[in-house]
Amino acid sequence: MDHSSRTAITDSFFFPQRIAVIGASAEAGKVGNDILRNLIEGKFDGEIYPVNPKRDEILGLNVYHSIGEISSDIDLAVFIVPPRYVISGLDDIAKKNCKAVIVISAGFKEVGAEGAQLEQELVKKAKQYGMKVLGPNCLGIISPSSKVNASFAAEMPIQGNISFISQSGALLTAVLDWSMEEGIGFSKIISLGNKAVLDEIDFLEYLGEDPDTEVILGYIEGVEEGQRFMKVAQQVTRKKPVLLIKAGSTSAGARAASSHTGTLAGSDKAFATAFKQTGIIRIHNVADLFDLAKGFAQKRIPRGNKLVVITNAGGPGILAADASEKNKIQLQPPKTEIIAELKEALPPTAALFNPVDIIGDAREDRYKNALNILKKDRSFDGFLVILTPQSMTDAYKVAEEIVKFSSNCKRPIFAALMGGKLVRRGIELLNKNNIPNFEFPDEAVKSFAALVNYHKFTRKPQPTYREYEDVDKEKVKEIISDSMSKGMFNLSEVKAKEIFKAYGFDFPESHLARSIDEAVQIADKLKFPLVMKISSPDILHKSDIGGVKVNIKNLEGVIRAFMEITTNVKRKSPKAAILGVDIQEMITGGKEVILGMTRDPSFGPLIMFGLGGIYVEVLKDVSFRVAPIPVEEAQNMVREINSYPLLAGVRGEKSIDFNALYEMILRLSQLVTDFPEIIELDLNPVKLLPRGKKSYALDARITLISN
Amino acid sequence: MDHSSRTAITDSFFFPQRIAVIGASAEAGKVGNDILRNLIEGKFDGEIYPVNPKRDEILGLNVYHSIGEISSDIDLAVFIVPPRYVISGLDDIAKKNCKAVIVISAGFKEVGAEGAQLEQELVKKAKQYGMKVLGPNCLGIISPSSKVNASFAAEMPIQGNISFISQSGALLTAVLDWSMEEGIGFSKIISLGNKAVLDEIDFLEYLGEDPDTEVILGYIEGVEEGQRFMKVAQQVTRKKPVLLIKAGSTSAGARAASSHTGTLAGSDKAFATAFKQTGIIRIHNVADLFDLAKGFAQKRIPRGNKLVVITNAGGPGILAADASEKNKIQLQPPKTEIIAELKEALPPTAALFNPVDIIGDAREDRYKNALNILKKDRSFDGFLVILTPQSMTDAYKVAEEIVKFSSNCKRPIFAALMGGKLVRRGIELLNKNNIPNFEFPDEAVKSFAALVNYHKFTRKPQPTYREYEDVDKEKVKEIISDSMSKGMFNLSEVKAKEIFKAYGFDFPESHLARSIDEAVQIADKLKFPLVMKISSPDILHKSDIGGVKVNIKNLEGVIRAFMEITTNVKRKSPKAAILGVDIQEMITGGKEVILGMTRDPSFGPLIMFGLGGIYVEVLKDVSFRVAPIPVEEAQNMVREINSYPLLAGVRGEKSIDFNALYEMILRLSQLVTDFPEIIELDLNPVKLLPRGKKSYALDARITLISN
Repeated sequence: MDHSSRTAITDSFFFPQRIAVIGASAEAGKVGNDILRNLIEGKFDGEIYPVNPKRDEILGLNVYHSIGEISSDIDLAVFIVPPRYVISGLDDIAKKNCKAVIVISAGFKEVGAEGAQLEQELVKKAKQYGMKVLGPNCLGIISPSSKVNASFAAEMPIQGNISFISQSGALLTAVLDWSMEEGIGFSKIISLGNKAVLDEIDFLEYLGEDPDTEVILGYIEGVEEGQRFMKVAQQVTRKKPVLLIKAGSTSAGARAASSHTGTLAGSDKAFATAFKQTGIIRIHNVADLFDLAKGFAQKRIPRGNKLVVITNAGGPGILAADASEKNKIQLQPPKTEIIAELKEALPPTAALFNPVDIIGDAREDRYKNALNILKKDRSFDGFLVILTPQSMTDAYKVAEEIVKFSSNCKRPIFAALMGGKLVRRGIELLNKNNIPNFEFPDEAVKSFAALVNYHKFTRKPQPTYREYEDVDKEKVKEIISDSMSKGMFNLSEVKAKEIFKAYGFDFPESHLARSIDEAVQIADKLKFPLVMKISSPDILHKSDIGGVKVNIKNLEGVIRAFMEITTNVKRKSPKAAILGVDIQEMITGGKEVILGMTRDPSFGPLIMFGLGGIYVEVLKDVSFRVAPIPVEEAQNMVREINSYPLLAGVRGEKSIDFNALYEMILRLSQLVTDFPEIIELDLNPVKLLPRGKKSYALDARITLISN
Repeated sequence: MDHSSRTAITDSFFFPQRIAVIGASAEAGKVGNDILRNLIEGKFDGEIYPVNPKRDEILGLNVYHSIGEISSDIDLAVFIVPPRYVISGLDDIAKKNCKAVIVISAGFKEVGAEGAQLEQELVKKAKQYGMKVLGPNCLGIISPSSKVNASFAAEMPIQGNISFISQSGALLTAVLDWSMEEGIGFSKIISLGNKAVLDEIDFLEYLGEDPDTEVILGYIEGVEEGQRFMKVAQQVTRKKPVLLIKAGSTSAGARAASSHTGTLAGSDKAFATAFKQTGIIRIHNVADLFDLAKGFAQKRIPRGNKLVVITNAGGPGILAADASEKNKIQLQPPKTEIIAELKEALPPTAALFNPVDIIGDAREDRYKNALNILKKDRSFDGFLVILTPQSMTDAYKVAEEIVKFSSNCKRPIFAALMGGKLVRRGIELLNKNNIPNFEFPDEAVKSFAALVNYHKFTRKPQPTYREYEDVDKEKVKEIISDSMSKGMFNLSEVKAKEIFKAYGFDFPESHLARSIDEAVQIADKLKFPLVMKISSPDILHKSDIGGVKVNIKNLEGVIRAFMEITTNVKRKSPKAAILGVDIQEMITGGKEVILGMTRDPSFGPLIMFGLGGIYVEVLKDVSFRVAPIPVEEAQNMVREINSYPLLAGVRGEKSIDFNALYEMILRLSQLVTDFPEIIELDLNPVKLLPRGKKSYALDARITLISN
């Protein structure tokens, strides 16, 4: 087994030789007793050092009265003592060169201010000693392959290649108990607890390198370091599928999350975006999590989305076909020569296309024949075998045939032996052979679709990032620090535009007229129609108070607009300082879009894109990405809005210049990545023109962080 | 038990006294043996008359060599003989006054032309004798309460109050086997087979009246008589929930459906619409079907959508909260005095809001206390009890407390005892007491939401239909028969408009100009701007060939438009007969919408509504209803499009006159209901103006049935 040195400490959690159980208890039902018993009954083959000041022997093991009494070094320490004893215990265990610690004990952050204080101390000690600490307030870890059950979960789970990281210990207990009946096998199980030191990112990284882990599952309620999370996820998802439930995804859920673990849940939009962007498969319920995991755990890779369905019943075949259509899985007919061969081998009433219906009286031999014939058709990327228990059917024998078939089949295989006790033994046989079985065919198709999508994702080139070098970072730095020093957090339009200009955005040329005469002089040199806007540092929303006039067609209009604008503003904002009226050429034609950014507490800069006007306001047709945005994602975020065809041109209109749009998104991404001080911004609207014509931002707003 | 005379024949299927098994077999494994054994082992307490010419005794029963040998009358006859013997057997069984027949035998429509011929004969005989026939090619029926298992399914299912109609026999076998393990109980189970005589509608109607059926489930692949189906469904869904899987819902699925049963699957849009319109709950997979059914089967009715969640674990509580938000279920905190009482009764670390987290060390007494305190809060409409197996937890004892609690609780109760063998006995206890348990809390919330939505639906007033009496039906009849007799199936715009006008639609006044001079004369009397359109019976899409000019502002424009239009048409459609150019005032302002109708093979007239232009073409933002449309549904179909706010007015615009729009939809519904000869029509666009101003259809197209 290859465990790189980089993860040596984390390895001690799963492959320790010497485990100390601090707070081992002789009393059955106590956590300190459960853990000891689990280690023993799990057949851990290293040394166990129970520590308890009042006992000499527990469960047949020699007990140490203190950590100091232990003479050898310790690889993994498990604490089940009250919080303050945990803190002092870290000093003792450090002396035993122990770098891996599990704190099962509750009574830290989750119970309030005093506990949070203790947790702070724990973090400090861990840092001081270079210790990795899992928990506190967790269930522990389980590693069936190395026979380590350092948890108070009930029983050693079945060994397998699925690893599971959970921020809820209780959910883990339920899932483990359930998994035994479902025949689901695990490689490594981690209960995160309060995540004082080690968090989901650490284990995601570790499991990404772990040769015994084929699929990574997780239940998380929050991510603190969003950008680090994304960086790690981006690496890991290329290597193996990561399927996560993010609970507290809705506002009601988030309320429950914050009262539960004190985690500040990131907004769901940011999570959804970050997951999609990094290739994490987001799951919404536990049943789906394992349905998909089962499909991945079989380690067979589909090259494409073409599935062939073999069934002994029409109805379930139709359910599979429906699910295929819904999940973009193709059920194409077999090749002509294969159909001919099937016709030879199957009864005349069989359906030879796809689903291939081998009829209700099919025995195992007919399943075998159909499978072997269909296997020759290399255009299929996966097999789904459906069985309903008819009077002739022996589900176990069919399962045997599926297992035999699987032994030299590299394409993924799915089974839906449907029913209860009539198919039970068959399902158990499939489970043992790592062939996923599903209660109903639609679940199998969903699992295949997840495989197809995942492997399509892994075949995509690595994301590429573009950095524009023509930006004037120094200038922006200056504007921002100058504004912040003056306590101006909502930048004036002029300042905001300067920042954007420094990053390569274009605005229509604008001239300030301080009088009607100046306005006429300026207008005379420009091309009508014109736009005129009030210029005032005190006014953020100019339109609302009649401070903007558009489509001004002649000099007469310029004079009228000047008077109206200044009158409106004086009346509605009598205290606003008026610098004058900005005059610019009006950009006609093209499409208006919005670009914006808001900073998410977990993931940072969340960039939004959408078509302007009702598309954003009424239809809420927008897309998001977390910056820094790779080039490919800039393209995807444009294509994924529903109104995308309007940009590409409908009814004979010209397409907008998409490259100009992608560039704007990437420059925006660079700006907000360079300057975390910017917490919100809008370019609204941006006028996109057809290829060859310049696109312009028409208005800009930037808000800086105020403390 | 009250079974009205109306359903007396159908009653014979479920409550027979004397059953004849024609084709009883002595050979184990044969269907004719299975059925006999199932009847005997199911403890049927009436008389069984096996018929087999070659045997004297089977499974201990006296065998008759022919139907004629039976001396008494027969209530229910089950045929398991080859097709042609079924046909002749009907004559014999008729003499025994038997009106209820199950034909298990295959070899009819599903095997091709010859079989279809036999099926025709079967239908004829049934009609002749006034017999109700189930099948052919079916699994039979099962009625646990009356101990009738007239099927070749494996075992008598658990007795309960869920009834299941299935068009797939094999799916039924799988579901029945599965249901035993899941503890799901049934009232009546019907395998429809080829639906030669009795179909899903007959049984839907029967089960609607059946006092032993609380929930009706169904798996169907097609509906032949859509309008009758909707009429029955509308009645039944008011009385009890109907949950249906419509398989073959997608184009891939539909392909499989037609090769399977020869059913012509209605388009999925029509099904989706018909289900929604009649209150049928559409389900997309078998697991969901039973998850929801379990919730309904408990017979407790929620008054509103407020759920309280009691849990011993935070994570699963969050999952429940997330699912609540997603399913529009409210988790409000308990009332102040209830919180105070909870605080008293629960440990200090408990979460008292909602989810109420009674902490991992909760035993059954704490569940009991929490439940009883929360019960006093009448603002909650339902209870969800979550349990994860912790070391202190005894799932069975908690289940006992839930059962006790349920005994005098009228609000629905849901449980999620999560896990495997640690919770198994508890779940069994809940099943026995008809309290639905779910593997994971999100499924329980989904089930509660289905209950809430269903009961909200039943509290709505019955749909009302409006018939406009000012329509000129005679005139439309005349135009249609005249056109059809002339072989003109695509009506001219003039004819189409006449039809719509006869049903109360308004079009802008239009005048035909045959020359430039006439055009100028006409235009002079109208208000500019104007619209001019080519008038030709040969041209359907006028815009496409430059036959329409809009926004004509003066007489000069009229002259130019006349010349351009006639030139364009002559050039692009040289063979078209030109009557002249229609001139009308242009309707400015307002919103353009589309109304249309297409006739679905199963359900008939499917009416479409949407906003004009890109909303239909790009965003596909449209809604459908099957005519005749009730008044309430006319309103709903307008409100359900995404761009609805645009009609109500955004950015200070005036709202359109909604009553005028509803009226148009209802008049359209009346027109297409009155005239089945109309197979397609479009009113595109319809100009909707603010209240007080008349709305106009601007263009009309009608296609009649051509054979």
